[in-house]
Amino acid sequence: MTVETETVEQYLASRRKLVDAVLDRELPPASTPPQSVHEAMRYAVLGAGKRVRPIIAIAAAEACGAEIEPLLQHFAALELIHTYSLVHDDLPALDNDDLRRGRKTTHVVFGEALGILTGDALLTEAFTWLATPIDGIDPARQLRALREVSVAVDSKGMIGGQVADLEAERAQEHGGDRAALMRQLEFIHENKTGKLLTASAVLGGILGGASGEQVETLREYGRATGLAFQIIDDLLDVEGSAATLGKTAGKDAAQGKLTYPALIGLERARAEAARLLGVAVGKADIIGGPVNYLGDLARYICERRS
Amino acid sequence: MTVETETVEQYLASRRKLVDAVLDRELPPASTPPQSVHEAMRYAVLGAGKRVRPIIAIAAAEACGAEIEPLLQHFAALELIHTYSLVHDDLPALDNDDLRRGRKTTHVVFGEALGILTGDALLTEAFTWLATPIDGIDPARQLRALREVSVAVDSKGMIGGQVADLEAERAQEHGGDRAALMRQLEFIHENKTGKLLTASAVLGGILGGASGEQVETLREYGRATGLAFQIIDDLLDVEGSAATLGKTAGKDAAQGKLTYPALIGLERARAEAARLLGVAVGKADIIGGPVNYLGDLARYICERRS
Repeated sequence: MTVETETVEQYLASRRKLVDAVLDRELPPASTPPQSVHEAMRYAVLGAGKRVRPIIAIAAAEACGAEIEPLLQHFAALELIHTYSLVHDDLPALDNDDLRRGRKTTHVVFGEALGILTGDALLTEAFTWLATPIDGIDPARQLRALREVSVAVDSKGMIGGQVADLEAERAQEHGGDRAALMRQLEFIHENKTGKLLTASAVLGGILGGASGEQVETLREYGRATGLAFQIIDDLLDVEGSAATLGKTAGKDAAQGKLTYPALIGLERARAEAARLLGVAVGKADIIGGPVNYLGDLARYICERRS
Repeated sequence: MTVETETVEQYLASRRKLVDAVLDRELPPASTPPQSVHEAMRYAVLGAGKRVRPIIAIAAAEACGAEIEPLLQHFAALELIHTYSLVHDDLPALDNDDLRRGRKTTHVVFGEALGILTGDALLTEAFTWLATPIDGIDPARQLRALREVSVAVDSKGMIGGQVADLEAERAQEHGGDRAALMRQLEFIHENKTGKLLTASAVLGGILGGASGEQVETLREYGRATGLAFQIIDDLLDVEGSAATLGKTAGKDAAQGKLTYPALIGLERARAEAARLLGVAVGKADIIGGPVNYLGDLARYICERRS
């Protein structure tokens, strides 16, 4: 395999194909009873999504010199967790979104009860995948990797970010001082999107055999990439359109959500994303390795044009 | 400690106290940001609940001769999972229950959005607890124990049972033949309640150092106890009242839910519960051990009078 000569687009496409194949193979078939929840799980996960989180884990493991094939199901679990968070965020009681990744959201197609239970099922399935033994991997290391992921998405991590995001909506409607809003925004970004992206890099490192020092470098890489990613997402919401974005654009602004552009302006938001990208690329360089797409991935995420 | 001389009531009370102390200590303080979700998690878990699942795990571990103190947080994780399932089942889109364990349900107190996210947070927290390393326990064994729990509550387990339960409501309204309904009911009971109770006995065994054969005996014990428990729950719903049950009684019947008494009558339902109890007690006897409350626990569950 001459991976070194792939462009980042080719790398993303080839790794996405690997992740998609594992998701399709390992998710329970739609014929498994009760069929409805398995149809809904497959609908939510398959057919759309860039698989950014599993690909970050793959890139981290490859940079550490690991053979990725035995680790793919564990990395694909990150996509289950990401999808569960989207399915629940889209529910009427939360963001009430009808459109996601260019398709009707899960609860719109399958009903609200199944929307809730499908999200629950994806989160649970993710932990089963993460806890599946891997030949040649120390179980203590695997347990530590699983715990990194669960902590990243708990009430002080991803869920906490989502809760803070919901509460920020209310706070902004009622006014609130700028410094407090900025701290709140950073909490939301760091947790709602950042923690799972960071855990993706860390998971790739731990299962890929990284040293303790390398794991911490990957953590910093993931953190910078995650924050940049979130700022870009805010910017795209302002600049994008429903057609190119595959979700209802301008919705954040319409809902009065706390965003970087809303708080510090477009130009400063762009500059902050660029600064964070620099940090991410620097950390990627420290990892080194013969096949290292981490820097390119961070750049791709930050420069994506829809 | 002279545990051998405790009555089952004393055993339940003393072990419940241990579980409650761990839940209170290990759940994030209500002051942790974002406070709302941590208040809601503590509200949902603390102050009510018999802690049946952690106590089954404790009894299984003790029957295998284990020191339970280092395992308590892992056993308490079962209560987080049980509570998450209740919080989500009570949501307006599902069972729409306002009362649970004699108190207002979580979404009634904290709102629907936080009801959903609090359930998510409890499930996630459970896996963090289960993945926390334990001194002197082989990590491979711990990983296997965690996977037993996640598989028990996945879309083919507890969640699948809940989905089938929701769908059975519809099917019964539209008629449906008796044999098919019976198969459906068994699927619901085995999965919705049975799988987590079974996993509780299995978790106690695996972390308590049980042999492979003992683990399988505990699995059969858990399965019989879980089915008996569910039948009794159905019977209590018919016979009980809101005051003694702490939930809205007669609700299952009012909603046209599939239950044992509805399908085979009160007497046969009572007889089936008694038969299953006999199986459970027999399996408990096979495990043996100097401190073995497994049989008493099964009996207590099957004979509880509210």
